[in-house]
Amino acid sequence: MFAAPSVSAFNPPRRILMGPGPSDVYPQVLAAQSRPTVGHLDPLFVAMMDELKSLIQYAFQTRNEMTIAVSAPGSAGMETCFVNLVEPGEKVIVCRNGVFGDRMRQNVERIGAEAVMLDFEWGTAVDPEVVEAALKAHPDAAFLAFVHAETSTGALSDAKTLCALAREHGCLSIVDAVTSLGGVELRVDDWGIDAIYSGSQKCLSCVPGLSPVSFSPAAVAKLKARKSPVQSWFLDQSLVMGYWSGDGKRSYHHTAPVNALYSLHEALRLLAEEGLENAWQRHRDMHLLLRQGLGSMGLEFVVAEQSRLPQLNAVYIPQGADDGAVRKQLLDNYNLEIGAGLGALAGKAWRIGLMGYGARRENVALCLRALAEVLN
Amino acid sequence: MFAAPSVSAFNPPRRILMGPGPSDVYPQVLAAQSRPTVGHLDPLFVAMMDELKSLIQYAFQTRNEMTIAVSAPGSAGMETCFVNLVEPGEKVIVCRNGVFGDRMRQNVERIGAEAVMLDFEWGTAVDPEVVEAALKAHPDAAFLAFVHAETSTGALSDAKTLCALAREHGCLSIVDAVTSLGGVELRVDDWGIDAIYSGSQKCLSCVPGLSPVSFSPAAVAKLKARKSPVQSWFLDQSLVMGYWSGDGKRSYHHTAPVNALYSLHEALRLLAEEGLENAWQRHRDMHLLLRQGLGSMGLEFVVAEQSRLPQLNAVYIPQGADDGAVRKQLLDNYNLEIGAGLGALAGKAWRIGLMGYGARRENVALCLRALAEVLN
Repeated sequence: MFAAPSVSAFNPPRRILMGPGPSDVYPQVLAAQSRPTVGHLDPLFVAMMDELKSLIQYAFQTRNEMTIAVSAPGSAGMETCFVNLVEPGEKVIVCRNGVFGDRMRQNVERIGAEAVMLDFEWGTAVDPEVVEAALKAHPDAAFLAFVHAETSTGALSDAKTLCALAREHGCLSIVDAVTSLGGVELRVDDWGIDAIYSGSQKCLSCVPGLSPVSFSPAAVAKLKARKSPVQSWFLDQSLVMGYWSGDGKRSYHHTAPVNALYSLHEALRLLAEEGLENAWQRHRDMHLLLRQGLGSMGLEFVVAEQSRLPQLNAVYIPQGADDGAVRKQLLDNYNLEIGAGLGALAGKAWRIGLMGYGARRENVALCLRALAEVLN
Repeated sequence: MFAAPSVSAFNPPRRILMGPGPSDVYPQVLAAQSRPTVGHLDPLFVAMMDELKSLIQYAFQTRNEMTIAVSAPGSAGMETCFVNLVEPGEKVIVCRNGVFGDRMRQNVERIGAEAVMLDFEWGTAVDPEVVEAALKAHPDAAFLAFVHAETSTGALSDAKTLCALAREHGCLSIVDAVTSLGGVELRVDDWGIDAIYSGSQKCLSCVPGLSPVSFSPAAVAKLKARKSPVQSWFLDQSLVMGYWSGDGKRSYHHTAPVNALYSLHEALRLLAEEGLENAWQRHRDMHLLLRQGLGSMGLEFVVAEQSRLPQLNAVYIPQGADDGAVRKQLLDNYNLEIGAGLGALAGKAWRIGLMGYGARRENVALCLRALAEVLN
C-alpha cells in the first residue's frame, strides 16, 4: 500500500472576489448547497429541477423548451452549443475580440468544421458592419458565433443587432453570455438568439461548475436534423433532454450534480426576487461609482465608454506598478482578489469584477481604498 | 419582460441514500463545500489542489503524475479517457456486462473508432478467457476497456487479470471504477491500469459532479503521440494539465468548480484518515450483514457470490411485489431511497447501495426493517 497523505481540513479565508470570476457567492447560495443530498431521480428533486428550468428561462428571458444547466463549467456550455449544432464541414463565422472568441474557433475546428475568423481589436466591440460584410461574402455560412461580454477585455457587443444580421442571412446565432447573464441587458427571445451559454460563477454569484444553456426552436430543429451523431456523449442534448424534459418521465443520463443544482436554484431565485432589470441597474450603478474612483486615481480603462461592461472593468496597469506584487498585496493584506490580464492583456491590465453579489457599495469602497493604499 | 417565477427556497429532507448513487454524503463534506469560495488561481486554493491530487493518487494507489478530478460527473470522466487516448480508426475491445460497457461502446463509436464488443450475461463478471481469445483474434487492437464494478448489476470483474492480459497483448487498459473506488480493492499501479475514471458520488461519499481520473505514463505517451487533436476542448488533458500540474505555474483552462473541489478534498481526506483497507473491509462487513438479512427474507441476489460487489447489492424483486410502489413507500414513509433496476434489469431487480458513508450498521438495520415492513 502507498501510505495515506496526512492532510488537514481546508479552511479558506473569506476573500472578496473582484476578479473576472468566480465572483462573490451569496451566503444563501453557500448555505443552499450544503443541504442534504437527495437522489437525482427523487420526486422532490425533479420538482426542484422544474423550478430551476423556469428560473433559467427567466434569467435568459426565453420560453425555449430546451433550457438546462449543463453539469460542468461554462467552457463545457460553449462546447455543448458547438458540438450539438455544428456538423463537420459546415462553415461558422466566428468573431474574435478576445480570448473567448478564439476558444470558439478551437471548438469549431475540433468538430472538423470551418471557422471563418473576423478579428477585432482587443478591447473593442464586434463591429456589425464587418459582420454583415462577412455574412454577405459567405452565403454558405450556417452560423454566426460571438461573445456578448468578453471576459478577457470587458467589451460588450451588440447582441441584438448581430443576431438580427445572422437571421437575415440565414445563419443561426451562437452567443457566449458567460459574463453578461444577470449583469447587463440580455433578451434571448426578443433578440432571436439561437444558442446561448453562460456560467454559474459570474453575475449569478453561484458557485462555479455549472453552465446554463438554451436552444431556440430553430436550434433544436437543426440538432434533430443532424446527419452525424453528436461527437460528445456527455454533452449530447438529445440524450440530456431525456432527463431534463418536463414530461414526468425522467430517464437517467448521468448523475446530476445535485448540490450544485441546489445552489444554482438559490442564486437564480435571488435574482428573480431582485428582478432582472434591478440587477442590471445595480451593476450599472456600482460600475459608475468604481469608474469615478478609478478615474480620480488616474487609471485608464481599456474599453471605450460606449462598449464598457459594468461588471468587468479592465484598466491599464499604471506605469511603475508591479502587476504581481500589487495583486499579491491586495490578496494578502486585504483578502481582496482582482484579476490579472489575460492573453494580449497579460501584464498590461487588471480586471476588476463587479459581478452579482459582488456588485455592492462596500466592495467598491474597499477596492478603491485598498488599491489607493497599495499604489501609493 | 417575462415575469419572474415565484419560487421558494428548496429545503430537501434528510434522505438515507441506499441506491446506486448518489450515496449518503459525509456531513463534514457538506460542511466543507459551503466554505467561502476563493479564486481558482488563489495560492491557497492551488495548494489545496496539490493536496487533492495526492489524495486522489492515494485512493487510486498510484503515483501517476496525470491524476486529476475532471470538473464534471463520472460520465465525463469516461469520455475523458476515451477521447484523449483513442484516435479515429483505432480498435478497442470493449467488454459489455451491463449498461456501462455499452456506454463505452458509444464513446468509442463517436470518436470514429471501432468497438469490438464482447458480451457477457448481465450480472456476471467479465470472463478473462473470452477476453484473452479476443486479444489473440484482434492483434491490431490498441485498447481493452471494461467496467471494474458494474453499477447496473453489482458484478465485480477481475481488473488485475484483465489488465495483465491487455498488457501482454500490447493493449492499453481503460477501466471504469465509478462504483469500485473506495469500496473494493483497487490498485492502479500494481495492476498496471493505464486509464481509469471514477465518480465522486459513490463510495467516496462526496457530492456528485466530479470525476477522479488517472493516466499511466504509457497512456500519457499515447496522448502525446496523437496524430489528431482531441475532439473535446473541455476534456483535452494536455490543456487541463496546464492547470493541474504541480510545477508552480498554473495556466487558466476553465474556471475550476472551487467548492465542489473542497468537498472532494474533504471526502478523500476522510478516506485517507480511515485508511483504504479499512474502508474496503467496512464495505465487506456491511454487505455480509445486509446479505444475511436479505437472505432470511428470501430475497435472491442477481450476481453469484464470487462476483458480488459489497457496495451494490442487486436483488430480484420478489413475486407479487410492486416495484414502484415499494420504492415509493420506502421513500415516503422512511426517507429511504433504494435503486430501481436499470437496462435489462429494469422492473426486475432492486439495487441496494452500501457506499462510503452509507455503509453503516444503522443504514443496514433501517433498510432491512423498512423493507420487511413494506413487503409484509
